[in-house]
Amino acid sequence: MNAPPATPARPLCIKLHPSDNVAIVVNSGGLKAGARLEDGLVLVDAVPQGHKVALADIPKGGAVIRYGETIGYATLPLGKGAWVNEFLVELPEPPPLASLPLATNVPAPLPPLEGYSFQGYRNADGSVGTRNILGISTSVHCVAGVVDHVVALIKQRLLPKYPHVDDVVGLNHLYGCGVAINAPAAIVPIRTVQNLTLNPNFGGEILVIGLGCEKLQPERLMPELSPEAARRNILSLQDERFTGFQAMVSGILEMAEARLELLNRRRRETCPAADLVVGLQCGGSDAFSGVTANPAVGYAADLIVRAGGTVMFSEVTEVRDAVHLLTPRVVDEAVGKALIREMAWYDDYLARGSTDRSANPSPGNKKGGLSNIVEKALGSIVKSGTSPIQAVLAPGERATTKGLIFAATPASDFVCGTQQLASGMTLQVFTTGRGTPYGLAAAPVIKVATRRDLAARWHDLMDLDAGRIATGEASIEEVGWELFRLILEVASGKKPWSDVWGLHNALAVFNPAPVT
Amino acid sequence: MNAPPATPARPLCIKLHPSDNVAIVVNSGGLKAGARLEDGLVLVDAVPQGHKVALADIPKGGAVIRYGETIGYATLPLGKGAWVNEFLVELPEPPPLASLPLATNVPAPLPPLEGYSFQGYRNADGSVGTRNILGISTSVHCVAGVVDHVVALIKQRLLPKYPHVDDVVGLNHLYGCGVAINAPAAIVPIRTVQNLTLNPNFGGEILVIGLGCEKLQPERLMPELSPEAARRNILSLQDERFTGFQAMVSGILEMAEARLELLNRRRRETCPAADLVVGLQCGGSDAFSGVTANPAVGYAADLIVRAGGTVMFSEVTEVRDAVHLLTPRVVDEAVGKALIREMAWYDDYLARGSTDRSANPSPGNKKGGLSNIVEKALGSIVKSGTSPIQAVLAPGERATTKGLIFAATPASDFVCGTQQLASGMTLQVFTTGRGTPYGLAAAPVIKVATRRDLAARWHDLMDLDAGRIATGEASIEEVGWELFRLILEVASGKKPWSDVWGLHNALAVFNPAPVT
Ligand SMILES: [Ca+2]
Ligand SMILES: [Ca+2]
Ligand SMILES: [Ca+2]
Ligand SMILES: [Ca+2]
Ligand SMILES: [Ca+2]
Repeated sequence: MNAPPATPARPLCIKLHPSDNVAIVVNSGGLKAGARLEDGLVLVDAVPQGHKVALADIPKGGAVIRYGETIGYATLPLGKGAWVNEFLVELPEPPPLASLPLATNVPAPLPPLEGYSFQGYRNADGSVGTRNILGISTSVHCVAGVVDHVVALIKQRLLPKYPHVDDVVGLNHLYGCGVAINAPAAIVPIRTVQNLTLNPNFGGEILVIGLGCEKLQPERLMPELSPEAARRNILSLQDERFTGFQAMVSGILEMAEARLELLNRRRRETCPAADLVVGLQCGGSDAFSGVTANPAVGYAADLIVRAGGTVMFSEVTEVRDAVHLLTPRVVDEAVGKALIREMAWYDDYLARGSTDRSANPSPGNKKGGLSNIVEKALGSIVKSGTSPIQAVLAPGERATTKGLIFAATPASDFVCGTQQLASGMTLQVFTTGRGTPYGLAAAPVIKVATRRDLAARWHDLMDLDAGRIATGEASIEEVGWELFRLILEVASGKKPWSDVWGLHNALAVFNPAPVT
Repeated sequence: MNAPPATPARPLCIKLHPSDNVAIVVNSGGLKAGARLEDGLVLVDAVPQGHKVALADIPKGGAVIRYGETIGYATLPLGKGAWVNEFLVELPEPPPLASLPLATNVPAPLPPLEGYSFQGYRNADGSVGTRNILGISTSVHCVAGVVDHVVALIKQRLLPKYPHVDDVVGLNHLYGCGVAINAPAAIVPIRTVQNLTLNPNFGGEILVIGLGCEKLQPERLMPELSPEAARRNILSLQDERFTGFQAMVSGILEMAEARLELLNRRRRETCPAADLVVGLQCGGSDAFSGVTANPAVGYAADLIVRAGGTVMFSEVTEVRDAVHLLTPRVVDEAVGKALIREMAWYDDYLARGSTDRSANPSPGNKKGGLSNIVEKALGSIVKSGTSPIQAVLAPGERATTKGLIFAATPASDFVCGTQQLASGMTLQVFTTGRGTPYGLAAAPVIKVATRRDLAARWHDLMDLDAGRIATGEASIEEVGWELFRLILEVASGKKPWSDVWGLHNALAVFNPAPVT
C-alpha cells in the first residue's frame, strides 16, 4: 500500500442512519471547538477523531441514537454540537433473552455468485486447506518444551527436504492436566483441543505428543483414530521404549518425517470459493469499525455466502447487546434458540465470576470513541453482512453447514482465533481500529484497518485500508470486493503481513472450568 | 548419574507409620500373587509397583490407614495381602475448615545452620537472583508475536556482546485484555503479572512491551515506576512515533541494549544460603512421592530454613485434605486464618465450577498407586519439612518473610511455577514419579525422581534420584543433603537438565475470573 493523505482537509462527520442524533468525527487529530460542518453544525467542544458529536439537543435521560438504535441515555443535558463521550452515556439494559423474535425476518437467499475460485489443498474428508501444515498437537502443556525443541529441529533439518509443505506448527496450549476435567464446562476445552487437530490446514496428518500421566489422554484427544493410526500419530514421552531425552526426540522426528513425506505429495488445486471457511473477528475496535472495516467485511461475507462458502462470526460479548437484531435473521426457531442458549450461557458465566458485559469494552475502544458495549456491538455485528444465519456453534464445535454461522467464542482475540480454528476456520479476517500485530500460525490472518492513518502508519502490518470509506475515497462495495479478492489470493498462498514477519499468537483454548 | 539396578531383587514393601494397615510395593514391575514378604505376609493378588497391599483384614467400611492417617474407607471387605486399589477406597470428607486447631503445636525453631553459601546476583533491593536475565514482559498477549521476534533477534545479535548476561526471556502470557478486569478475582492475575516483573532473576531491569489499547495498561503493570523510569522500561506498539513494524523492532532493540549494558556489569558474589528463595512442587506424583522424593525435599527444606532462607510450598488442592496437619504448625493465629482463607477460597472456586477436590488426582497418579486426593495430599505436604509455617501468600503475592511459607497456587505444574515466580521464587525443586520434561525459562528447576527406574530411564532429564531411599541404598537425610548441595550449585549457575536442553514451559498466569 502507498501512504496517501490519511485525513480529509475539511471538517467531516459521519451519520449512519436517518434517526441518529449523533455523528462521528472523521478527521485525524479530531476537530476543534468552533469547527463548522458542511451542514452548518458548529462544534461547541473539541471532539477527538472517532468520537461522537450531538446533532441535536439531547435532554438528560434522553436516548443517544447511533445505527438507528439506542446506545444509551444522556447522563446530563447535551447541547447540539457537544462532545458525547463515555461519561455522558448511561448503559441501557441488554435485550431480554426470553422475548426475542426468532426467524421473523429471515432474509431471502442472496443471488448466487459464480466463477470465483482459489488454489487450495483438498483433503480426504472433502474439506479444503489454505495451507499445507504439519501440525504437532499436544494432550497436555507439560510437553510444550519438547514440542518447541522438535519443531525447531524439524524446521532446520527436515522441512527443507519437503518443499511442498508450508510449515510445521506446534499446537501448544495450557489445557490437559491440572484442570477439573469432569466439571460441566470442561466439555468446551476438551472438544476445542480435539477439533483443533481436525483443522483442514493440517491435512489429516497431525501428530499428537502426550506425556502419559495427564488427565486428557491422547486417545481421548483423537477418539476417532483406529489403534493402528494411533500408533502412527500419537507418541507419549513416558513410553518405556524411550531411554533418555534424545530417544524421545528421535522418536518424534521419525514420526514427523513419515507425515512430511505424505504431506509433501499434496499440491494446490483449483477449488470453488464455496470451499472457503472464513472466520471474522475484530480487535482494538474504534468508532470507525462499524462504519468502514466492518461493513466492508460484511459485504465480503455476503459475497462468500453467495459463492456457497462458509463464514463464521463470533465474540459473544460483542453480539449480546445487538442480539435482537440477529434473532430475526436465523433460518429457523431451532437456530434462534441455539443463539439465545449461547447468550444465556455467557451471561451466566460472567455472573458466576461476579461480573457482566460492561467488562467489555477496553480503554482503547473508549479512546477510539466507543462509549460502551452497546455501541461496540452494533458496530461489530455489521461484519455478519445480510444473509440468513444458518447455524450456531457452541464454543469449539465444528462447522457442518455452509453459509453464515455464529460460532460462539469469547471476544478475546487469541481465544476467538483458537476457537475458530477448532471450528474449522482456514483463514481469518480481522478488523482493527487501534492496531494489533495479531497473527495465527495455523491459518493466515488478513488485517483490515478502520482508519487511513492507522493503515498508513502500520503500512507493513495492515493488509487492507478500509479507512478510505470514511473519507469518501472508496465505497463499502469497492472495499468489500477488494477484500473478497484478497481472501481468494491469501487462501491460494499469498502471505499476509503477519506471516511475512512470522508474528503469531499462542493458542488460547477457552477453559471456563476451574484449574486444580 | 549412572544407571544402577532400579529394583531390589527380593519382594519389598514399605510401611510408613506403625498404625498403617497398608504398605506399598517397591519392586519395579510389581509383585505377583503368592509373593512372600520378609515378615511372612503372602500377597493374594498381583500388586503393581507403588500400589498398596493390605497388611491386615479390613472390613467393609473400615479405615484404610497410610501415613498414620485415614486415606479412605474400604468399599468391600479386604483380606490381608489383597491389592487395595482406587476402586476399593472411598474418599472421606475433607477436614472441616471451621474447627481446625490453629498454632497449637508450633515447632520449636530448628537449630541454625551456618557456613553455606552460593554465588548469586545481589539486587539493589537486597534480593538475590540465581540468574542474570533480561526479562521482556508484556501487558497483553496481543504483542506476543513481536516479543518472540525480538527475543530471537536479541539472542542472535545482542546477547553475544554481553557475556555476563545469562539469557533473554520473553514473559508472554494470556492475560491483559479480553478479560473481566474488574471482576473480584481479577486481582489474582493482575498482581501475578505485576509481581512477575519484580522477580529477582531480572535484576530490576525488566522491559515491558504493551500494545496501547489493552485493559491492563503497562503503567498499571509496573505501578511503582517513576515517569522517567517508565520511559526507559515501557514501550507501546501503538505509540505514534513508530511508523511500521521495523521501527517498533528498532525501538525495542534500543531499549533492550540499554538494559543489557547495565545487566552485563553485574557479577556473581558470595551470598549466604539465607538469600535462597526456593519453591517446591510436585507433578506426576506416584505412591513413592510421599516416601522418597518428598521426604528428601522436606529434609532439604528444613536445611534451607535452618540456614535462614525462604522455602515456598504450594498447590492448594494437594494440601486441602491434609490441612489439619498444617494448621497446628503455623506461627500464630493470623497465619492460620490466612491458610484457612486460601483453602476456603479454593473450595468456593471449585464449587462455582460445579466440581470439587476429587478432580485431582490424574490418571497417572492413580496408575502410580495413589488412590485419591487424601493419599496424594498426605504425601505432598511432606515436602514442607518440619519447621513452623511463617506466612501464607494469596496467589501471586510476593514473599516478604524468610522461613517456610505456604504460597497458595493451583497444583497445575505450569500455573504453580508461574505463581511461585511472581512470589519471588528464584529456584524450583520439582518432584515427580511419572516423569515430566517441565522447566521454566525464568528460574532453574531441579527435578527429583521418586523411583530408581524413572531416574535411570530419564537419565538426562532427572537431576536427582530419590528412589534409592525406597531400596534402602540411601537415607532420607543423605538424599536431603545431596539436594541441598545441588540447590546451592544450581543457584550458583550450574544448569539442571531442563536448561541444558532448553526445555521451558510457557507462563500460565492463574486467572480465576472470566474472559470476555
Ligand atoms: Ca472484537
Ligand atoms: Ca476480538
Ligand atoms: Ca498465519
Ligand atoms: Ca503436585
Ligand atoms: Ca504440580
